[in-house]
Amino acid sequence: MTHSLAGRPETATQAKVLKYLRDEGPLSRVELADRLGVSRTTMASEVGRLTELGLAEPAGPAASRGGRRSTLVDLSAEVRFVGVAIGATATSVAVTDGRLKVLAQRYVELDVRQGPEHVLAEVLELTRKVLAEQGIERPAGVGVGVPGPVDFHGGVPVSPPIMPGWDGYPVRDAMAREFGCPVLLDNDVNAMALGEQHSGVAKSARDFLFVKIGTGIGCGIVVDGQLYRGVDGCAGDVGHIRIEEFGPTCACGNTGCLEAFFGGAALARDALAAARSGRSPALAALVEQKGELTAADVAAAVAQGDPYAVQLIRDGGHRVGWVLASLVSFFNPGLIVIGGRVARLGHPLLAEIRGVVYRRSLPLATGNLPVVLSEMGDDAGVVGAAALISDVVYAAG
Amino acid sequence: MTHSLAGRPETATQAKVLKYLRDEGPLSRVELADRLGVSRTTMASEVGRLTELGLAEPAGPAASRGGRRSTLVDLSAEVRFVGVAIGATATSVAVTDGRLKVLAQRYVELDVRQGPEHVLAEVLELTRKVLAEQGIERPAGVGVGVPGPVDFHGGVPVSPPIMPGWDGYPVRDAMAREFGCPVLLDNDVNAMALGEQHSGVAKSARDFLFVKIGTGIGCGIVVDGQLYRGVDGCAGDVGHIRIEEFGPTCACGNTGCLEAFFGGAALARDALAAARSGRSPALAALVEQKGELTAADVAAAVAQGDPYAVQLIRDGGHRVGWVLASLVSFFNPGLIVIGGRVARLGHPLLAEIRGVVYRRSLPLATGNLPVVLSEMGDDAGVVGAAALISDVVYAAG
Repeated sequence: MTHSLAGRPETATQAKVLKYLRDEGPLSRVELADRLGVSRTTMASEVGRLTELGLAEPAGPAASRGGRRSTLVDLSAEVRFVGVAIGATATSVAVTDGRLKVLAQRYVELDVRQGPEHVLAEVLELTRKVLAEQGIERPAGVGVGVPGPVDFHGGVPVSPPIMPGWDGYPVRDAMAREFGCPVLLDNDVNAMALGEQHSGVAKSARDFLFVKIGTGIGCGIVVDGQLYRGVDGCAGDVGHIRIEEFGPTCACGNTGCLEAFFGGAALARDALAAARSGRSPALAALVEQKGELTAADVAAAVAQGDPYAVQLIRDGGHRVGWVLASLVSFFNPGLIVIGGRVARLGHPLLAEIRGVVYRRSLPLATGNLPVVLSEMGDDAGVVGAAALISDVVYAAG
Repeated sequence: MTHSLAGRPETATQAKVLKYLRDEGPLSRVELADRLGVSRTTMASEVGRLTELGLAEPAGPAASRGGRRSTLVDLSAEVRFVGVAIGATATSVAVTDGRLKVLAQRYVELDVRQGPEHVLAEVLELTRKVLAEQGIERPAGVGVGVPGPVDFHGGVPVSPPIMPGWDGYPVRDAMAREFGCPVLLDNDVNAMALGEQHSGVAKSARDFLFVKIGTGIGCGIVVDGQLYRGVDGCAGDVGHIRIEEFGPTCACGNTGCLEAFFGGAALARDALAAARSGRSPALAALVEQKGELTAADVAAAVAQGDPYAVQLIRDGGHRVGWVLASLVSFFNPGLIVIGGRVARLGHPLLAEIRGVVYRRSLPLATGNLPVVLSEMGDDAGVVGAAALISDVVYAAG
């Protein structure tokens, strides 16, 4: 089986139909007509055109609502998106169907500091392999997330602190040339926020924050259902918010940033110090065994009841909580989702964050504010990257 | 001369015409047709209808662009709005024309802590006096700003820390009953942000922050040209962002809030302590003379070169700068406008704020970020309150 690039919707109604089908699954023509406020005749002709364009297809009769049966419409089974999540130390590539359901996914350890030529060559090879296994000739579009600020309109990273060599590199255009399809580049945290909005705990939220705690710490901001990127595209850079005037030096060159206290590297540094100083027997045993420590090892030490490891998480959660309390006072979101690899420290971390947010923010702003952990794991980034490009493919041409 | 309530626009095109005329002044029918992308015939008929409704009127021939001369259209000279800015210690009332130009303004010392019945009775009396002087029977609408969180849809203050007795009081409905016209209630800082957007330094900004430093400290957030209120209507509550874990107790009950360090009351407290301890001879002389001190007295002491007064402003500016640097990292705005009475400390304060913001935020976010002082003084609040209600009056009914 081969897949090829489908057409693009021709009208705003067609574009809206595609987005409804993507976000809600198959719908009958009658339901679509009702939701869009157009006549059934108009909807029949718009759906017919989408079928001719290879974007939608009939999916059997709809459940009867009395009267004549309507036909279900689904997205074309031919449409495939690629989501690429380039992280600081690893990259995920996924192929999704038109509804952003992950069909195949590959994960590879890859240090982003090796520079764009090397990293993108690896990403291309991996993506081509996954596409070939799925029998896909050309995807409808590719979305890419990278762990740093991005000029969204230019499709290039801009002075990314943890991505040496990537500043201004034409990632989007280079990838589009290779794949022969539309490509979009965004910050990884923005992509994760879109992933949570499409398939995660933020599914019905219109105004929410997605906070990633990984090697870096960042925040995706959704306002009225849309990603807010800021005037220079670098909104959500909360990892470099100052926690203390003096403190550890950060990769950005300042001191006392949240990330320098509790990003993945900072946590590994503190865990190693605790192991070496004898304050944490559990971490000392782990470093003895593995030679190095990561956030996952701190979680393992916590699971063994190691008091100093618990203290590390509490201190970090407290600092994240301070920053989030400020953002709640400023932004009054309807939901906060915490994700990223360090966030897998789980409920002890969440409890500490919640404690500070609920104590320090205006009661009016926290009365109905859930602060929850992501349940998407590594999927948020790739699904979100696919969501990003699906918005373009499903927009009227 | 008497004025009475005009009709409401009947179509989206008519509503857009009114907003263009409000924000840009008189335009020719040809210019209006071009901007809205409708035919000249359609525009002629829409403008005719607005004239019949008493909302617009011809304003002489437009400058020739070759070919037949077009007629200028202006807002009806009959339309009058009222903007009310209720502050912690004083209230301003203004009457504006349809373009939000202030025609008359009154200012009265009035302590908001006297409660809603007393304060609103004073506001009504003052407003009726100004309307009578202007020969206005009934305004087209009244906008009201108050110094606390507001349930915008319900038209009531919600647990406002510095407004005892106002929680849940039906301010909007009580005022609407008295004036017999549409009334809207909002937070004072939101109103000031709208004032800056209409007539101030934020005129062309789409994404900006307006920071008020007065008795309270708050922030108005404009996203893509629209005020962002947050899910509970309390976005922008930056005065209660934590500066230090321990610090002076704030009116909100927490310790270490920005407002507890540098709101108007905090500054007066610190100035008085400096006067009494002998650290500031200039402030000591002022308290001797007046019996009390305000932010204006600190400005006077700075003008006399009093080192401790300068230090007070520097410390406060430094703390405001820390908070703003966090918000710049998070929100990546295109402009920050500083207003409110404490902001009249002027350039020494601004210099300190800028220093911290430019040093502590991501360089990408501050490369093109102006941080400026408001030039509207007391007008921002009343013009913004009038802008708020004009949006309703000029919306299709």
